[in-house]
Amino acid sequence: MTRSRRRIAEGILFTDMYQLTMAQLYFRHGMHEMDAQFDHFYRSNPDYGSHQAGYCINAGLESMLTWMLDAHFGEEEIDYLRSQRNAHGDHIFHDDFLAWLRTHGDFRSLSLRAIPEGRVVHPNTPLTMVQGPLAMAQILETGLLNYMNHQTLIATKASRIVESSRGGPILEFGLRRAQGLGAIEGARAAMIGGASFSSNVGASYLWGTPPKGTHAHSMVQLFMAMGEGELGAFRAYADLYPDDCLLLVDTLNTLESGVPNAIKVFEELRRKGHEPVGIRLDSGDQAFLAIRAAQMLNEAGFPHVSIVLSSDLDELVIWQIITQILQEAPRYGLDPDAVIKRLVYGVGTRLITSWGDPALGGVYKLVAIHPRGRRADGEGDEWMSAIKISETPAKTPNPGVKKVWRLYGRRGTAVADLLSKEDERPDLAESLILRHPMDHTKYRRLGRNAITKIEAIQVDVLRKGELVYDLPPLDAIRQQRVDDVELLDPGVRRLVNPHIYHVSLTQRLWDLKQAAIEQAKGSLE
Amino acid sequence: MTRSRRRIAEGILFTDMYQLTMAQLYFRHGMHEMDAQFDHFYRSNPDYGSHQAGYCINAGLESMLTWMLDAHFGEEEIDYLRSQRNAHGDHIFHDDFLAWLRTHGDFRSLSLRAIPEGRVVHPNTPLTMVQGPLAMAQILETGLLNYMNHQTLIATKASRIVESSRGGPILEFGLRRAQGLGAIEGARAAMIGGASFSSNVGASYLWGTPPKGTHAHSMVQLFMAMGEGELGAFRAYADLYPDDCLLLVDTLNTLESGVPNAIKVFEELRRKGHEPVGIRLDSGDQAFLAIRAAQMLNEAGFPHVSIVLSSDLDELVIWQIITQILQEAPRYGLDPDAVIKRLVYGVGTRLITSWGDPALGGVYKLVAIHPRGRRADGEGDEWMSAIKISETPAKTPNPGVKKVWRLYGRRGTAVADLLSKEDERPDLAESLILRHPMDHTKYRRLGRNAITKIEAIQVDVLRKGELVYDLPPLDAIRQQRVDDVELLDPGVRRLVNPHIYHVSLTQRLWDLKQAAIEQAKGSLE
Repeated sequence: MTRSRRRIAEGILFTDMYQLTMAQLYFRHGMHEMDAQFDHFYRSNPDYGSHQAGYCINAGLESMLTWMLDAHFGEEEIDYLRSQRNAHGDHIFHDDFLAWLRTHGDFRSLSLRAIPEGRVVHPNTPLTMVQGPLAMAQILETGLLNYMNHQTLIATKASRIVESSRGGPILEFGLRRAQGLGAIEGARAAMIGGASFSSNVGASYLWGTPPKGTHAHSMVQLFMAMGEGELGAFRAYADLYPDDCLLLVDTLNTLESGVPNAIKVFEELRRKGHEPVGIRLDSGDQAFLAIRAAQMLNEAGFPHVSIVLSSDLDELVIWQIITQILQEAPRYGLDPDAVIKRLVYGVGTRLITSWGDPALGGVYKLVAIHPRGRRADGEGDEWMSAIKISETPAKTPNPGVKKVWRLYGRRGTAVADLLSKEDERPDLAESLILRHPMDHTKYRRLGRNAITKIEAIQVDVLRKGELVYDLPPLDAIRQQRVDDVELLDPGVRRLVNPHIYHVSLTQRLWDLKQAAIEQAKGSLE
Repeated sequence: MTRSRRRIAEGILFTDMYQLTMAQLYFRHGMHEMDAQFDHFYRSNPDYGSHQAGYCINAGLESMLTWMLDAHFGEEEIDYLRSQRNAHGDHIFHDDFLAWLRTHGDFRSLSLRAIPEGRVVHPNTPLTMVQGPLAMAQILETGLLNYMNHQTLIATKASRIVESSRGGPILEFGLRRAQGLGAIEGARAAMIGGASFSSNVGASYLWGTPPKGTHAHSMVQLFMAMGEGELGAFRAYADLYPDDCLLLVDTLNTLESGVPNAIKVFEELRRKGHEPVGIRLDSGDQAFLAIRAAQMLNEAGFPHVSIVLSSDLDELVIWQIITQILQEAPRYGLDPDAVIKRLVYGVGTRLITSWGDPALGGVYKLVAIHPRGRRADGEGDEWMSAIKISETPAKTPNPGVKKVWRLYGRRGTAVADLLSKEDERPDLAESLILRHPMDHTKYRRLGRNAITKIEAIQVDVLRKGELVYDLPPLDAIRQQRVDDVELLDPGVRRLVNPHIYHVSLTQRLWDLKQAAIEQAKGSLE
């Protein structure tokens, strides 16, 4: 059957044009099937203006693989490329290249190693490493970055919001403010980052979590316009959902109308043998209203119903609300911890857009090539480093094929990530030298007894296009985040001004990098 | 044939759970087929931190309609809803409601009036008005907002970037930093807002514009690793694309290596009878490097090749670059206007994410109901206003069924938008009273002779689900933006601190709003 135009746009054409013009160039020069390695990594944690993250939560791998393993150049894609002409009316893509693309134009030739989803990750660490024929590894770049950048960004924001809520459940409410269909992957990433549920029905269907939601202001307005008032609306809701009664109380006046009417309905429910679930506050001073509503609910005999907050929340706003409740609740005769414990947070815009920093700058850089038979001078059997010399040292990538190790210290917390050459075994070494990736004056030597565990954190995912990794279910990915965040130093977890987590190089990788830089500089002269 | 799970998640389930729980409540109370009207509007222009927009560019309608006209509750969707249970294990959705949804669960019963895509729009103006049976009009909310918020946000940002570039072409480069598949609609919105082309091949395929792109740093690195250097890479590119030769010159050192090597290759090309296209600068001080590169290219006899800039650009950065060139180019003996005229801008992250304000807060509010036969007291034939009283007056929506008029003054520019009741004809009135939507002290009377044109800017799009509007091609939508922006006062077009454009109410709509507020307040007592 023919695929729709939309499906074609989402397939292998979900890439940048320059990947295709470069691929044709590699084809023309017989380099298209040369083995290459690209590293995917990001250079700095999201910085939300006043506060930068101390870590990221890796996410997006499964979605990216779903796309990648299906994407290919079929007849429609080839026809489209054939139709592209330059300003002179000449074809941009030539028949021999298009013929090769028609038969070899999928990602089944690539191998991929990655850090699993849900893991805590850090800048300048290869999150994904791709090896395989140059042309297809190059074309993969854009789609891979799109999926990984987006979901890692949102999972990270969610993790921070969960940290700030002190265990209060987070509901993802952002569908109406997301970038189109990106909302579906956004909801998944939010749940990897620790959100409990999503309001997005389609995303919940796809990712296997129950969708959550109750009612909007419009329902109350409608009953008001019909002459039945807010109380009529609440009663109608309680009638239909007696065991799921959560009422939005701020359509008219939260404390004078909404909460008193909700309490009336809760009392009626209880007389019928049902326990109400809670109220929702969607406007105003959320801390003050939560305290006053808690007080009114307590006095009416409902000390346990939830109070859902949902007005432009993010990690700082939640932190501020909790701080204000800690300070103010006692003045109203309330135990602040009891108020905080009953809070639930509906987080919309600021989670789904990663408010303050709406993009993760993940990149995909050529780090090594393996010319194979092409060069007959005996060097063809070795991976050669490929490096871009940047005027900004922090932008110079680490060369070659690498492994990523996580080092745990005596308190059991993760103390550093260490990048090594592929054949190194720092886990077997007596002592380790940890070199700063850029600054030659910064290094430290660690005795093996200072390290309680050294963990290789990458897994093999694809071997020449074959999936060799059991994709974990969403719940396992979510648990991985919980476990990894627990193992961070509290300073790295801080919401504002976090302690910097070190990513270091082994001495051998450092030496390789220096040699590659010298070689690249030499080629400049 | 069965649809994939992904397609189901993108269909009618692309909504919030509370729309469905509310719909069931309306069904239970016999209100689900009562006629309702919802207005879609936004309350304030995007505010990018240091600078707020003076207007928006409406976009998203066609994509929203494509989704809307296909979305429906099929067997899979109904099965999914039937499977949802609450904490007690009870079904959330009941069989009678699900049976109704199976037969009536699409948007073919709705009528829709809208402001066309590409038009300049302003806060608190209904961009889309939906009428029809309450339950389905309610379920539509989330999807409608998702598509309209996203594309209006991006078209607006693009329009600002185009304004700042003084006619320099804008290339949309953001695919790798977008939210998943939202990149495809994002590229469309960018082009509505004035971007010339996109690097996104799939989006270009779908929207009918040629995709643009040349090569990345990796191509240069590769040739370097192979011992052929930057010059070898440039030569290879020029060989394959002799009439499309645009070279990225900052892999090693822009002024010492990249530009001189590019000039060498450009000279070789010219000897073979081809004219080069340009160079691209992707790092460093873009204004300084553009001036120096222009100088070198001029001296070498290439005064007309383009200089593409592509490093974290947005409207302020472009404005700053142009300002710096205006000030500094003369010191290098260059005509600044000639330098500026050859600039092209590749804009990635900051366009596709609307950097600084990554969400438009468009809302969808119940404004009127028409109970029809339900109330036998004689009032059933009239639309009744439905209004939410907010403690923030700016959040109180304008009630009832409305028309939107644009008033043009003696200089031909748009001076105000005017909202009237549906049956009013301000275009035929001798004089007009323009009332501020909230502040009763602010109004002005305009003689008809002060107004050169009064234009009704909404069009009928759907009548009971039937498309009665010829969707304009993308080029016409793009031209609409150009025309509308030209008709704005220059003060409203300013990038920073723009003049406020007035959206007013007619006296009759103002009176209706006051009555609705009083009525709603009354129902509180």
